[in-house]
Amino acid sequence: MFRGGRPAAVLNPAPNFVRVATPMVRIRLTLPFPILLLLTFGHAAADEGMFPVSQLGGLGLQKFGMELSDQQIFSGDKVCQIDGICKVNGCTGSFVSADGLIITNHHCAYRAIQSASTAELDLLENGFHAGGLKNEILAKGYTVRVTESFRDVSDQVLAVVNDSMSALERAKAIERQIKAIEKDAEERNPSIRAEVAEMFIGETYLLFEYTYLRDVRLVFAPPSSVGNFGGEIDNWEWPRHTGDFSFMRAYTAPDGSSADYSPDNIPYRPKKFLQVSARGVDEGDFVFLLGYPGRTARHKTAAFLEYERDVRLPAVVENYSRQMAIMQQQGEKDRAVEIKHASRMRSLANVEKRSRGQLKGLRRAQLAESRREKEQKLQAYIDADPGRKKKYGTLLTDIEAVYQEMQANFEEEFEFQTAITASRLINIAHTLVDMAYERAKPDLERESPYMDRNLEQTLKRLRLTVADLDLPTDIRIVNEIYLGSEKLGSFGDFAVLAKDTGLDDLSLVEKLAAAPLPELKANTDPLIQAAFELHPETLRLRELGKQREGELTRLYGELIDVKKQFSKDEFVPDANATLRLTHGNVKGYSPGDAVMMRPITTLRGVAEKTTGRPPFVTPAPVMDAIKKENFGPFRRPDLDSVPVAILYDTDTTGGNSGSPIMNGKGELVGVNFDRAFEATINDFAWNESYSRSIGVDIRYVLWITGVVYEAKDLMREMRVAGF
Amino acid sequence: MFRGGRPAAVLNPAPNFVRVATPMVRIRLTLPFPILLLLTFGHAAADEGMFPVSQLGGLGLQKFGMELSDQQIFSGDKVCQIDGICKVNGCTGSFVSADGLIITNHHCAYRAIQSASTAELDLLENGFHAGGLKNEILAKGYTVRVTESFRDVSDQVLAVVNDSMSALERAKAIERQIKAIEKDAEERNPSIRAEVAEMFIGETYLLFEYTYLRDVRLVFAPPSSVGNFGGEIDNWEWPRHTGDFSFMRAYTAPDGSSADYSPDNIPYRPKKFLQVSARGVDEGDFVFLLGYPGRTARHKTAAFLEYERDVRLPAVVENYSRQMAIMQQQGEKDRAVEIKHASRMRSLANVEKRSRGQLKGLRRAQLAESRREKEQKLQAYIDADPGRKKKYGTLLTDIEAVYQEMQANFEEEFEFQTAITASRLINIAHTLVDMAYERAKPDLERESPYMDRNLEQTLKRLRLTVADLDLPTDIRIVNEIYLGSEKLGSFGDFAVLAKDTGLDDLSLVEKLAAAPLPELKANTDPLIQAAFELHPETLRLRELGKQREGELTRLYGELIDVKKQFSKDEFVPDANATLRLTHGNVKGYSPGDAVMMRPITTLRGVAEKTTGRPPFVTPAPVMDAIKKENFGPFRRPDLDSVPVAILYDTDTTGGNSGSPIMNGKGELVGVNFDRAFEATINDFAWNESYSRSIGVDIRYVLWITGVVYEAKDLMREMRVAGF
Repeated sequence: MFRGGRPAAVLNPAPNFVRVATPMVRIRLTLPFPILLLLTFGHAAADEGMFPVSQLGGLGLQKFGMELSDQQIFSGDKVCQIDGICKVNGCTGSFVSADGLIITNHHCAYRAIQSASTAELDLLENGFHAGGLKNEILAKGYTVRVTESFRDVSDQVLAVVNDSMSALERAKAIERQIKAIEKDAEERNPSIRAEVAEMFIGETYLLFEYTYLRDVRLVFAPPSSVGNFGGEIDNWEWPRHTGDFSFMRAYTAPDGSSADYSPDNIPYRPKKFLQVSARGVDEGDFVFLLGYPGRTARHKTAAFLEYERDVRLPAVVENYSRQMAIMQQQGEKDRAVEIKHASRMRSLANVEKRSRGQLKGLRRAQLAESRREKEQKLQAYIDADPGRKKKYGTLLTDIEAVYQEMQANFEEEFEFQTAITASRLINIAHTLVDMAYERAKPDLERESPYMDRNLEQTLKRLRLTVADLDLPTDIRIVNEIYLGSEKLGSFGDFAVLAKDTGLDDLSLVEKLAAAPLPELKANTDPLIQAAFELHPETLRLRELGKQREGELTRLYGELIDVKKQFSKDEFVPDANATLRLTHGNVKGYSPGDAVMMRPITTLRGVAEKTTGRPPFVTPAPVMDAIKKENFGPFRRPDLDSVPVAILYDTDTTGGNSGSPIMNGKGELVGVNFDRAFEATINDFAWNESYSRSIGVDIRYVLWITGVVYEAKDLMREMRVAGF
Repeated sequence: MFRGGRPAAVLNPAPNFVRVATPMVRIRLTLPFPILLLLTFGHAAADEGMFPVSQLGGLGLQKFGMELSDQQIFSGDKVCQIDGICKVNGCTGSFVSADGLIITNHHCAYRAIQSASTAELDLLENGFHAGGLKNEILAKGYTVRVTESFRDVSDQVLAVVNDSMSALERAKAIERQIKAIEKDAEERNPSIRAEVAEMFIGETYLLFEYTYLRDVRLVFAPPSSVGNFGGEIDNWEWPRHTGDFSFMRAYTAPDGSSADYSPDNIPYRPKKFLQVSARGVDEGDFVFLLGYPGRTARHKTAAFLEYERDVRLPAVVENYSRQMAIMQQQGEKDRAVEIKHASRMRSLANVEKRSRGQLKGLRRAQLAESRREKEQKLQAYIDADPGRKKKYGTLLTDIEAVYQEMQANFEEEFEFQTAITASRLINIAHTLVDMAYERAKPDLERESPYMDRNLEQTLKRLRLTVADLDLPTDIRIVNEIYLGSEKLGSFGDFAVLAKDTGLDDLSLVEKLAAAPLPELKANTDPLIQAAFELHPETLRLRELGKQREGELTRLYGELIDVKKQFSKDEFVPDANATLRLTHGNVKGYSPGDAVMMRPITTLRGVAEKTTGRPPFVTPAPVMDAIKKENFGPFRRPDLDSVPVAILYDTDTTGGNSGSPIMNGKGELVGVNFDRAFEATINDFAWNESYSRSIGVDIRYVLWITGVVYEAKDLMREMRVAGF
């Protein structure tokens, strides 16, 4: 079933249902934002690559099939392609209309859809179509970030370190300097957020300036059965038949400035939006993506890969599986509890399966082994010259020693660190106590989440944690996974504490979050008291983490130095959530002996997979349209069906969720949402045979939105012909 | 690790290990067996087909690629291809040497390998190579059955029924007549076993005469990690990399007659053996299989398919999953317990997954729906003629009524019937009591397993049940699955009964199995007493079953009549464990949207799948040979590897396990062991796109046996060049 805006009447689930509709309000604004500044600084050639947009110059993209000039992709003084891109919380989004309409993944909008749902009015299950601006629902906790400029601040950051510093001193000095640069930039221009990104660890730092739009609303979401078709079974798998897209809209104050939600706000006017291409792509076509890939570890050593393979990833798989099993069982009894768990379950399941894929890939592709071979060659190069040997001789073993120390202490640290996130109650108590200690410090001395500039975001997360809390689940998780933990001893008989605490009450949590340290210390809530007992351990582990980070920063900085001397290539920096471009082609692959995957799926596969039982349910209007071959203008003749998902060999990682897939003209042909199982190792290494990303085909997006659910307002807003 | 014969030294696991070897003893015998008699009786043309060997005449196999004449395949008076085929317990086997060497599946020899294993000397894990006749290990409980002749006895069987009989009377009369015909045939020729097979229900009956060879020995088995590579994960799946083969040998008394094990016995001399073809097959090649497919239901009605889809199969999946979960958990604690459970676990898992595949297929291919459409046409044909309408008008609804009654009573019957097999203890007690009651009757009146001619086989099964018993597992199964069952009320507090009973003692069970009814009644063992209380329910359900069977026999007999009037084709009888031929080609398929499967896998896939953790472990000698590309003469040039498994579109079902896959010349090119997941619906319907069977390629068999484990004795015995 599909529902209209809020407050919404229950609508007819048949394909031709009548919908609550409001005339489109179109408002034009002058642009108040600083002109986007993009500086180029050198370039690199590489086979794999998530290229910083500043490094496009030497790539010669046009010879691969790019029809745009480099200036049309990014430019210091002209409107360009990347003005059409934004960040939606942790995901990427694209503007697809002049009125701030954003397309991103269903799984990126998931929390917004979940928050707006109740057991009675379940937007996850039914889907949502606002049908007009006034019916668009506030996406609580969402922000849309637009990049305004960036510049190199490496000298400024590294000016505060010197060789006589210990690793810890060095890490702390860099951290403090970064905070100072960010704070200074924001004070000069209060409408922007400043963030320093480390491009090469210990070497290159860029200052990014962003606008954060704080009023974001939900416009259209297909039912979860479409948006998450195949669920955890199909997640990280090809072939795929998931309609993983949603439409949102960014709003600003009437003067165009960033503002909190207000009914008076107006749609944001992006400098650029992407034109959707109803014609889509064919096998072999050139495509490129722009997005904010999260973290990769392609410059890390074999010792790190072994630590991941033998220690951390297996522990994550085991711990997350146990948490999920408990949440699953508790949710089976009560749909309201299931909804509370939905977002966290999904995020755990996603990491758990990715970790399994990475484990498989690390073992199968023998990544640690081959990286160790490369390091032996590097070591031989180092040893061959007395000067180099003196400077870098113990570098690789020094790095290895850090990972060995991490491995030795892993078990107890992992237990502690997962416990304070696994239990919502412990998480709330821990956050309140930590916040009170940190807020007692001067702003620049605080841990980043508790600095004044970040505090609102931290409080938002805390509120969501309270909203997601289900007491019986929480008690089972602590008792079944963490019972007998020495560290958590202060939580004693957790079931009793959980019954006596008031931390499941949002208003109390809000009050305590504002309380100064002495007041919180005087509070008698048993969980608060237990969290105070736990806090010295938090501090110890935090200090230890910084010491390791400082050590690794220094060591990896030197490693990059000597690797550059040893070999000229391979110097695209690891992904770090800053804007990157990657390009490739629509292309199948062989995931194993005797199996060939084609790169475009169709509606036939949706019907084939549909069993009527989750996660393989297809809503009646979708099934009817498939049966009636009601393909609208989106039929692909050679497949005699509508394409659903596409596969391509670009280089992506987490954070590329929602990235626009564009053809050579820069038109939107799909939305990236996943990788094939074998491509989970992208985080560690690129592999020509296995690295394949998965996107929802724009033709499926438009077919679901325009043909099946008849959201003609959106078709017209995106200028799709025939609606 | 790989071990030699019994008593065997622990052998070096390296590829070049020294093996206990004894010179091959080759003994020539004159043939003492009756000449094989095969009578033809008409023929049929069909697209799908498991053809009775008596119906080959009209098939024109030669136009498909068969190079043998029909007479070379089967002949009434000459040695022919089917003289090279045998039945090995429930599986098919082929003779591959003049000295009774048999190749069948590893999973068919599994119980033999398991019985010979202990926690200390684990032949399942290590594999086995006798290396000479005197080291071959008795396969306890195994018989090899050779078909000697068959003839039509329909008139004789149906002479005892008339239209005035009730369904139950009819069923009982047929059952008794069949027993009498079998007994009579065996009295005329005491060296054979006689069995009447129902070809068309209520219409055609054939009397088969068989020789049973009772001394069967294990000759060579690869480690389970090869023979069951991929385990339950890969079972029913393509692509496959399982070396599912073993070699056994049939023995006879020195005079050539069938005999129980004796050290004086000599190898059996088959009239014909199949030459292995070291060259194997290519994609597209013609292949044919001979074997004993078990049961199919292609002539059953839509009502039956709905009963399977909605009632029986879901219950099987649920119940078996629960049994397996308990056995799994108990086995994890103790390898000896795991070995006890191995055979039953495997058989449950196999049926559970097949049932899931069938459920998927029934739903996806909408088999019940399309069969119901055909039946509507048949009904219209019946109704169109007053005479036909009078005779057959209510036939389809009468059949439906039987399945509806079965559905109404399903739950309690299923609980009862699975309980007496799920619990080994209840099974032992139930069998003893049932046996005592039945043996008190005249031989012909008894249930078939308790007739004198079958008693030894029943006792063998009972002994295996005692051997497989693990008390804690048994108690958990009863308490967790069947607690609260009304029917099983007499078993009261099962944990107490299980501790007080003596039925875990083989010698006591043997004694009680021989005890007459009054003596058993006087026995105070609490489980025996409980089983006596349960027995009236057993009798009631058995009577009910016969009544249904009688009713269905009559109704399906009439259905076949009217279907033959309605349409001339589709009259290959359902499979019924008698000898059938099926032919087709080596051929890939598309299991779903955007996926293509190729029909030949290679050693590369073995290496790819190997994780080092079960079920994806590859023994070091195999891995070494792959790494060194030590392919021997079995490399396929275009794949640059040794083929491992092949896929082909012949029509097979359960019981075809171990069937020889032969090329047009009748040479052995592989051993059938499974079907693709989508082909589990073969039991209900043939499907050109999905029906694919899976065999181990003869080149993999020979490579593992001859190259990796260097069983040169067997290579020479099979006349493979180069050894």
